[in-house]
Amino acid sequence: MPLIDEIIAAHTRIGGSIRQTPLLNAPLFDEIFGRQVFIKAECLQITGSFKLRGAMNAVASLSSEERKRGVVAFSSGNHAQAVAYAARCHNAKATIIMPNDAPRIKIENTKAYGAEVILYDRMTEDRDKIGEELSNKNGVSLIRPFDDLRVIAGQGTVGYEIARDLQDKEISEAHILCCTGGGGLTAGIAEALHHALPKTQVFACEPQGFDDTARSLITGKREVNALKSGSICDAIITPSPGHITFPILQAHNVKGLTASDESCIRAMAFAFKYFKIVVEPGGAIALAAALENSLPGSYPIVVTASGGNVDAEIFAKALASV
Amino acid sequence: MPLIDEIIAAHTRIGGSIRQTPLLNAPLFDEIFGRQVFIKAECLQITGSFKLRGAMNAVASLSSEERKRGVVAFSSGNHAQAVAYAARCHNAKATIIMPNDAPRIKIENTKAYGAEVILYDRMTEDRDKIGEELSNKNGVSLIRPFDDLRVIAGQGTVGYEIARDLQDKEISEAHILCCTGGGGLTAGIAEALHHALPKTQVFACEPQGFDDTARSLITGKREVNALKSGSICDAIITPSPGHITFPILQAHNVKGLTASDESCIRAMAFAFKYFKIVVEPGGAIALAAALENSLPGSYPIVVTASGGNVDAEIFAKALASV
Repeated sequence: MPLIDEIIAAHTRIGGSIRQTPLLNAPLFDEIFGRQVFIKAECLQITGSFKLRGAMNAVASLSSEERKRGVVAFSSGNHAQAVAYAARCHNAKATIIMPNDAPRIKIENTKAYGAEVILYDRMTEDRDKIGEELSNKNGVSLIRPFDDLRVIAGQGTVGYEIARDLQDKEISEAHILCCTGGGGLTAGIAEALHHALPKTQVFACEPQGFDDTARSLITGKREVNALKSGSICDAIITPSPGHITFPILQAHNVKGLTASDESCIRAMAFAFKYFKIVVEPGGAIALAAALENSLPGSYPIVVTASGGNVDAEIFAKALASV
Repeated sequence: MPLIDEIIAAHTRIGGSIRQTPLLNAPLFDEIFGRQVFIKAECLQITGSFKLRGAMNAVASLSSEERKRGVVAFSSGNHAQAVAYAARCHNAKATIIMPNDAPRIKIENTKAYGAEVILYDRMTEDRDKIGEELSNKNGVSLIRPFDDLRVIAGQGTVGYEIARDLQDKEISEAHILCCTGGGGLTAGIAEALHHALPKTQVFACEPQGFDDTARSLITGKREVNALKSGSICDAIITPSPGHITFPILQAHNVKGLTASDESCIRAMAFAFKYFKIVVEPGGAIALAAALENSLPGSYPIVVTASGGNVDAEIFAKALASV
């Protein structure tokens, strides 16, 4: 089945279990920014990020036999909470492998959704290996954070909703800026948008120094980041684009953008002041990229605010910059 | 025309100019709280509060002649921004009378929407008198913050949306907690809810020491607060319930609840952590009242988060309590 049909099927399958999030606009911010900006507020999604869409679609796609054996996932935090909650909704046991330096709120919430959490060291251990070993040993289903078509289709429902809302506003040309880690959200959005609104341009937004996707889109092969940590954007510092997601980004002519940690903090402050939403650093990278880069034309800009799971101490830094 | 019909007419009249805000729910908060809680997130409304609904309905109801002469309003800040923005949408000049101790963000934004702002001293000057004098002198239309049927009908669209969303969830019994100043929102919600879902109970929520509505509902006459200031909830410290709003509250058997400033700060912190929304102190009074009071039965609770226009320094206090 073509991916676009998988996205439409996912929209039907998970529509009743996820939140259709609002596309926010703030007239005063448009004036400051000099251009119409819409924020797809996925921080308001249940579990605090878009990740619930892919996780719910993947868990809902399992057979009842598979659900009985349980699921396993590795994640820096948002996919963790999403799989934990999706598994609970389907009465499946979840084991989640998380880095020991993940934000406290993400580890706490994953446990609160009833998952068993296994911590690992991001510097010395390979999370894929841990996940696959667990999966092979116990017959549980591994739900990868982005390189899984069920997950990409679920994330694509964000794009499906953006397209529908833009069509309602009679907007056919726009720049769509996505927060990009492994590229699941970006691939899903690019697929959905290019079918519904072919004149839109999708951008993958990454932290400076962690621009594996941007570089890969230029060289045509999957590049790897030199560093494994060191950005405030914990949610999206994956080493390289996925082997399933990357060809989708290429097929839809996605372009790369980067932004600094400082711009993320500033973007979080703007989201607080003008949009009244709580956005985590990685979830603010698309708005940060809009602030830092001059985008061609005068079309509206749509940015995803992909998550809001941020510890109070980090958010206080954003407040201090208002 | 009965008020409920005015509300339905307002829903049609302003539907394309305001945001239909989401009714948020957070599974982890339900668990902590021990009961299902929904938040009607009016902080996500354009201009950052529900006040836009009433202001937009009032301005849209004016004749083109009246709009040409302009509008005037007095407000501690949210009605100010709402009237300023609604006037701008209808090419009408707005003059707004605000207390000189209103939050900075509210004064700045009102000016940014293009209104002329006149500051007055809350302790020594009578805002009603200033507004009426201006209105009489220049033939401009005075848009009162709550004692105006067009405004009450506009605010009632919040209740219309809550009722529709509860019906979608097949919930017919619920406690509806409203943030209450002069009672425009509460009256509108009570009217809308009692027509659509007659088994719901509406509560007016006020800051401790500023519980004029709660006391009035007990004594049966409009009581006045002893103090004019001294609560963190700047948006809702009106001296007494309105002469139009109060009989509506009585007719729908609305009950009063209070909460402390400390509970408001805690409620703002919960809204940050679990719902990813920015709520101002007065906008958090309903959630604060839910935290402080034990409500009968085990029905779901719906709280309005009526606004999000809060200065960063105040919000930082809430973060410090997470």
